[in-house]
Amino acid sequence: MDIQEFVKNSIGRWRSQRSAHHLAFSHFEAVQSEIEIAALSIDDPAVIDLCKSYDIDPQTAVSPFRMSWEGQSDWDDGEVKGTCVLVPIPDPDDAAHRGKLLRDQGYAETIAAAGDYYLTADGTFVLTTAYERAAAEEKIWFVNPNVRCRVSLIKTSAGTGVVTASFSSEIRQGVQN
Amino acid sequence: MDIQEFVKNSIGRWRSQRSAHHLAFSHFEAVQSEIEIAALSIDDPAVIDLCKSYDIDPQTAVSPFRMSWEGQSDWDDGEVKGTCVLVPIPDPDDAAHRGKLLRDQGYAETIAAAGDYYLTADGTFVLTTAYERAAAEEKIWFVNPNVRCRVSLIKTSAGTGVVTASFSSEIRQGVQN
Repeated sequence: MDIQEFVKNSIGRWRSQRSAHHLAFSHFEAVQSEIEIAALSIDDPAVIDLCKSYDIDPQTAVSPFRMSWEGQSDWDDGEVKGTCVLVPIPDPDDAAHRGKLLRDQGYAETIAAAGDYYLTADGTFVLTTAYERAAAEEKIWFVNPNVRCRVSLIKTSAGTGVVTASFSSEIRQGVQN
Repeated sequence: MDIQEFVKNSIGRWRSQRSAHHLAFSHFEAVQSEIEIAALSIDDPAVIDLCKSYDIDPQTAVSPFRMSWEGQSDWDDGEVKGTCVLVPIPDPDDAAHRGKLLRDQGYAETIAAAGDYYLTADGTFVLTTAYERAAAEEKIWFVNPNVRCRVSLIKTSAGTGVVTASFSSEIRQGVQN
């Protein structure tokens, strides 16, 4: 599986159940949301602007997409809502399996972020992102074309302590499961 | 990482937070438990008996262990408790990374089960087990020596539909995190 195929398989509308484990105080948070992943054109102004903000040639981007989510957390009865643009920039030395992922809004902190991704031999997408005060590690894989799993870890910036471990099961909408 | 090292890293007492997603009805189940993983001697009667019940030469077993767990689920206020013996039988063709895992009590059904495991290049232990009416797929990996993640999927026996997806974050006890 290469990055283009991984993104293509992800396009669509997903119903997500997410559990976050806040490890220090053994708290469980449950989030239900709808996620929409939509392909963007390579010449979309949002894609070009994001590349430029990282001094990266937009011609090197592949399979850019927009991710939007909207849901409900059982913690603080909080509404969970957001959208971001993501742009893979394959590594010229291993363009199919490795590269940078640009994002106009991060996960752990709401600022732009560039992470490093690779695809394992068994098709797991692994993304690590260093933020100013934290580091995030994310693994996403398909169980079948209509079920995705995602594990996200938020670590202290030193990278040793795990603060939050969360797991999403995502089911494609608009198809028979 | 080979199977011996993986088992060795797992020995100890763990505090586990587990979230189960029952996908058909979007239910979240939260389980808190203590898990103890203890090495067994290769000539422990429980190990020899389990090998014999599968017609496998006990001499081919490596790193047998016992896993015990005790905790509380928020579903039905249920107590969660159990113990099982697990015996890796490496595949002679790739003894470090692949083999069968014998278990005297299964996960999805409380009967003995033999699963197939492999270790990926990035150190994830992947186990698939076929039961009479279901199939289970489990991935376990270490985030650091004191934090383990585990994703378990229970599928229909045909193997296409996912019934339950669960995620455990496990923190080693008796050390500073």
